[in-house]
Amino acid sequence: MGFGTVGSGAAELLRENHDHILKNSMQDSLELTHILDLRDFPGSPYEPILTHDFNDILNDDQTGIVVETMGGIHPAYEFVSACLEAGKSVVTSNKELVAEKGCQLLRLAESKNVNFLFEASVGGGIPIIRPISQCLAANEFGKIAGILNGTTNYILTRMFENGVSFEAALREAQDRGYAERDPSSDIDGIDTARKISILASLAFGKHVYPKDVKPIGISGVTEADVKRAAEQGCVVKLLATAEKLRDGRIDVEVRPAFIRKTSPLAPVSGVYNAILVKGNATEDVMFYGRGAGKMPTASAVIADVIDCCKHVGTRKFFGWEDSEPGYTVSGNASALEIADV
Amino acid sequence: MGFGTVGSGAAELLRENHDHILKNSMQDSLELTHILDLRDFPGSPYEPILTHDFNDILNDDQTGIVVETMGGIHPAYEFVSACLEAGKSVVTSNKELVAEKGCQLLRLAESKNVNFLFEASVGGGIPIIRPISQCLAANEFGKIAGILNGTTNYILTRMFENGVSFEAALREAQDRGYAERDPSSDIDGIDTARKISILASLAFGKHVYPKDVKPIGISGVTEADVKRAAEQGCVVKLLATAEKLRDGRIDVEVRPAFIRKTSPLAPVSGVYNAILVKGNATEDVMFYGRGAGKMPTASAVIADVIDCCKHVGTRKFFGWEDSEPGYTVSGNASALEIADV
Repeated sequence: MGFGTVGSGAAELLRENHDHILKNSMQDSLELTHILDLRDFPGSPYEPILTHDFNDILNDDQTGIVVETMGGIHPAYEFVSACLEAGKSVVTSNKELVAEKGCQLLRLAESKNVNFLFEASVGGGIPIIRPISQCLAANEFGKIAGILNGTTNYILTRMFENGVSFEAALREAQDRGYAERDPSSDIDGIDTARKISILASLAFGKHVYPKDVKPIGISGVTEADVKRAAEQGCVVKLLATAEKLRDGRIDVEVRPAFIRKTSPLAPVSGVYNAILVKGNATEDVMFYGRGAGKMPTASAVIADVIDCCKHVGTRKFFGWEDSEPGYTVSGNASALEIADV
Repeated sequence: MGFGTVGSGAAELLRENHDHILKNSMQDSLELTHILDLRDFPGSPYEPILTHDFNDILNDDQTGIVVETMGGIHPAYEFVSACLEAGKSVVTSNKELVAEKGCQLLRLAESKNVNFLFEASVGGGIPIIRPISQCLAANEFGKIAGILNGTTNYILTRMFENGVSFEAALREAQDRGYAERDPSSDIDGIDTARKISILASLAFGKHVYPKDVKPIGISGVTEADVKRAAEQGCVVKLLATAEKLRDGRIDVEVRPAFIRKTSPLAPVSGVYNAILVKGNATEDVMFYGRGAGKMPTASAVIADVIDCCKHVGTRKFFGWEDSEPGYTVSGNASALEIADV
């Protein structure tokens, strides 16, 4: 559902690496049955399976796994809910949907014994959802810190390395296709707030709602700030952190921060992202890679599809609980202070 | 089986994070039933379940998951084989066993529909086996590059940062407990060769035998080499690489290499490890963390145990095939040249 950048990338990947994917999913066949989009794609090899009617997917009993890459809450939420209700597993790359409705959708998936997976919703091609929920499952987490937005990291890297202004770096990012015409969701930290909300929900077991996170964006960062960071042996990054407080609440912060050059997060440059996870057994573990882009994100989508194939009839994912009001604390971090990461 | 550093760490972790682990494994109870070791541990809280007789484990129908942390091939191979034959899943941290016998043990596990998991065999607490086999399952891999040995990385980091000799850095590593009294397995690259063999087998789908890998160790690295690296904008690391050749064979190399400071592998210092994976969809993805140590490695062991709990009766892992003679190529890399990573 949704044949934009990520959706079409997933279809391409499924075709390109078909044998490899079939082998890894331990299936005899894996077939793309429908593509839902508002648009037409005349001449596309996918034209025969293109539809404008969601019911074509919903009512097809042969279709057991549905991929949602439309973005936004509506109608993605209604479509995904209906698919789960109908006993289909759902894979999504939609961070807004997971950040707002993850808890409800996971509960619905649980009640129907199907999977709702969303590796692609955070960190593009970087494996992070599965590592936190499975590989580090023996750990209790203290803190998660991440550089979760490639657009702002590109801008801050250019400002740092070339001494250009925020405005000049933003224009350059737009020219290179790394920033949208309206860049506010990235620049103001809204995209980052959604992603850290998902990671915090997963790591600490209760839903963190993005509306409770008060991000500070990077538009106020000046050339003087960047210079001062360098003088203090630091770099400037849009940093997201989620930390468990002693009283059980979670402090979630998004702000431009000074990061010491000795931190593993410091060398994460340009459009790359990284997530640092502190577990009580593992200590620091970090995941690094391209945080966005067509094929990296498609790779995460198809990995989830493969996982669904291997778990038909057995739900594999625990999920998290809903939270009480006041669970999330935010707004305690100041911009441009040295962060302890 | 084996109550040394990693085995006792796993037992501790199971107790410390018990509620968390139970929840993540979706079980009502999870009980440690036996500990096999040649030694006695008088006064230990585990004394009541300690045994010297492997048959106590093998013949206990209530024990469905066996953890092997003894190390070495014999009797680990015989014990693990017998457990799999008896329909028990096995989790191991034993890199020598997986590197030598992984293919056979995976096939045996397949035939009995049980799991043989080994996340802890490479990279200590760094999630890498599951990410390669699951999170990146939609990718075809071109190259894997890693800093896989904490002892040698500590020594090279000290030589680089403090200008000390190899001998002085080795003594320091021994004093701090980072190097064994007989450090040859680390220093000569044997440990690293085993780990890259496991990663290469997993990523490329056929068994790479460590005997076919010709490692170059770090004992020949001089202070002058380290200085020359710095002059060229590089650092020196014991680098392991596995790369698919055009004819389908795999080139596996272990050697001290110059790594450009712009590489994400360059800042990996001290006892930390990192693995860089190049997928055809994701491009560069890197995993970073403590490559050894009691609790990080125990964390990986228990994550596998949790996974076994969630997959009783359903094998979840594909494994890899055996390889024909000549499949692995090695010895083509020279020491102290700039590596393309």
